[in-house]
Amino acid sequence: MTVTSQVKPEDEMLNWGRLILDGVSYSDMVGARDRPKEITWFDYWMNLANEYEQDAERKVALGHDLSAGELLMSAALCAQYAQFLWFDERRQKGQARKVELYQKAAPLLSPPAERHDLVVDGIPMPVYVRIPEGPGPHPAVIMLGGLESTKEESFQMENLVLDRGMATATFDGPGQGEMFEHKRLAGDYEKYTSAVVDLLTGLETIRNDAIAVLGRSLGGNYALKSAACEPRLAACISWGGFSDLDYWDLETPLTKESWRYVSKVGTLEEARQHVHAALETRDVLPQITCPTYILHGVHDEVPLSFVDTVLDLVPKQHLHLVVEKDGDHCCHNLGIRPRLEMADWLYDVLVAGKTLTPTMKGWPING
Amino acid sequence: MTVTSQVKPEDEMLNWGRLILDGVSYSDMVGARDRPKEITWFDYWMNLANEYEQDAERKVALGHDLSAGELLMSAALCAQYAQFLWFDERRQKGQARKVELYQKAAPLLSPPAERHDLVVDGIPMPVYVRIPEGPGPHPAVIMLGGLESTKEESFQMENLVLDRGMATATFDGPGQGEMFEHKRLAGDYEKYTSAVVDLLTGLETIRNDAIAVLGRSLGGNYALKSAACEPRLAACISWGGFSDLDYWDLETPLTKESWRYVSKVGTLEEARQHVHAALETRDVLPQITCPTYILHGVHDEVPLSFVDTVLDLVPKQHLHLVVEKDGDHCCHNLGIRPRLEMADWLYDVLVAGKTLTPTMKGWPING
Repeated sequence: MTVTSQVKPEDEMLNWGRLILDGVSYSDMVGARDRPKEITWFDYWMNLANEYEQDAERKVALGHDLSAGELLMSAALCAQYAQFLWFDERRQKGQARKVELYQKAAPLLSPPAERHDLVVDGIPMPVYVRIPEGPGPHPAVIMLGGLESTKEESFQMENLVLDRGMATATFDGPGQGEMFEHKRLAGDYEKYTSAVVDLLTGLETIRNDAIAVLGRSLGGNYALKSAACEPRLAACISWGGFSDLDYWDLETPLTKESWRYVSKVGTLEEARQHVHAALETRDVLPQITCPTYILHGVHDEVPLSFVDTVLDLVPKQHLHLVVEKDGDHCCHNLGIRPRLEMADWLYDVLVAGKTLTPTMKGWPING
Repeated sequence: MTVTSQVKPEDEMLNWGRLILDGVSYSDMVGARDRPKEITWFDYWMNLANEYEQDAERKVALGHDLSAGELLMSAALCAQYAQFLWFDERRQKGQARKVELYQKAAPLLSPPAERHDLVVDGIPMPVYVRIPEGPGPHPAVIMLGGLESTKEESFQMENLVLDRGMATATFDGPGQGEMFEHKRLAGDYEKYTSAVVDLLTGLETIRNDAIAVLGRSLGGNYALKSAACEPRLAACISWGGFSDLDYWDLETPLTKESWRYVSKVGTLEEARQHVHAALETRDVLPQITCPTYILHGVHDEVPLSFVDTVLDLVPKQHLHLVVEKDGDHCCHNLGIRPRLEMADWLYDVLVAGKTLTPTMKGWPING
């Protein structure tokens, strides 16, 4: 593939707010920015991943598993941001390393992430489940990654959910992480969400009637479609998601490259056609029957017309709409508060069993 | 008092690594840096403290205590950094607000911070104790603030200690926080540490034989003297501390102002004389009889001769010396790793009861 953009990944990826909230160390980002010229972006982060891993191995030998888990999680995030938005051989190297490091971290996290090796339509699909402390059964939240994020990156948000008494489940769907080599981005992500619902309903520690889905960015699109198509889901959060890709022209050059990469096509025009068809949800949104939280930032590349679409199509009685007037994509620039709001809303719906009244916060934006 | 320095506090205080590790939101720091010219530094942070408090009150009303505690903790940190390194009326306004906000946060933290109202030599001295989950009795770590930090600011480090099964206790000594109005910086901080040891040994939830002291920056000086003078202490950490103030001339202008402020004297020369006498520990360091962890960054303003002093005077068999060649004051620029090291060392000594061998890491620096 020819990369048509001249923007360097590090220019576009340096969303410091996002990375820090997701657990990347501020000092490591400063180090990346100020690194010697002869060290590439990729090498800087991959070397750092090695350092964290070595530190973690030392910690395990000393019986300090808690620190080892934290350090391996940091290592996995370093590998993620090494490969982030590169579309050559670095991509798979970084992805493979992230998978390996997270797998080492999983049993050492607190609570641990237990690996379940599902196979869906002949494709291996590992699912990581974390169960909160205390007597179960517990509600659960299935977390969906986006265009550039995978099952290894939601650790911090998982912790907010776990702290509130809910389990978490993460996996890679079509076009993401470990599934990418087997299947490109497609129009059937909800099938894989449902496979995870199957898994969770079979676990004694999980409450079958209290399983939610939460997706970020492209994951927010998948979450909406999953909620529309999977009646067993008890709640849905679309965190910086979208209903369709009519706004393709507004995407940044590297995001378009990324769509092309995960679509496994040769040209941006083919990518546009493919994702436009695959990510259409408007036909199914009226089928949503569970409480649905939509978080949208006014400064997102996803245009405000998304909110109109939601108001048109998602049944009003289920809608909890939050529009942040100062928010960017996923409201990463607003700190932890939007994340606390989502975690507490999940607690209200799944743990406390509150019946929520339909809500519109921040909308209309000049209202 | 006349302020002799023309450096603005925000220039000196913007140690982003420190603030982020202590729990200040990256997005709030960006907001502070990029705030409109007509909003002062002080007003920016105090307004933000109000916002967090209002958010927290809303959370309490909804039954979301966990988020409320987090938000009030954020509010308290905002008030801290509003007043940080100002020496006029803003100082006491910010300090009082921080005290008020932390007091509201305390019962909502996880685990909660329980307030004990001690009186030492007629001076009220509130102590906050946090007890980890699980059956006790637990070891405990007394945490000492420094020149510009108080009992309200060690939340993140407390959490690392609590996660490893140890309780925490925080208070303000002479010259700090709530005690400042009653008593200036003096040469008897260890008396107040001992009062906290008295408190802790009277609690059923605490193991009397496993109480440590950990102090940061100036608190590291207090920790060393406390360990030397209080035989009931089972371990000591000096985190970016110092043994004496022979290096006065190397201090930054605002730090000198700060020494003068907490000494309640009129001139820098009086301040120098006062703190030089009050913070001398070399006469007592040979009395230390517990395992003692010294963390020092080579790029600290505290000169490397401190390490020589430690090696000369602290009994070798008790010494765990870590010199970080790339570290600044308190190694805030190195991310979470030095903090994990200290927390794990406390675990080894207090929880696991390991007998540690004397250690020198990173020393000699070219060795």
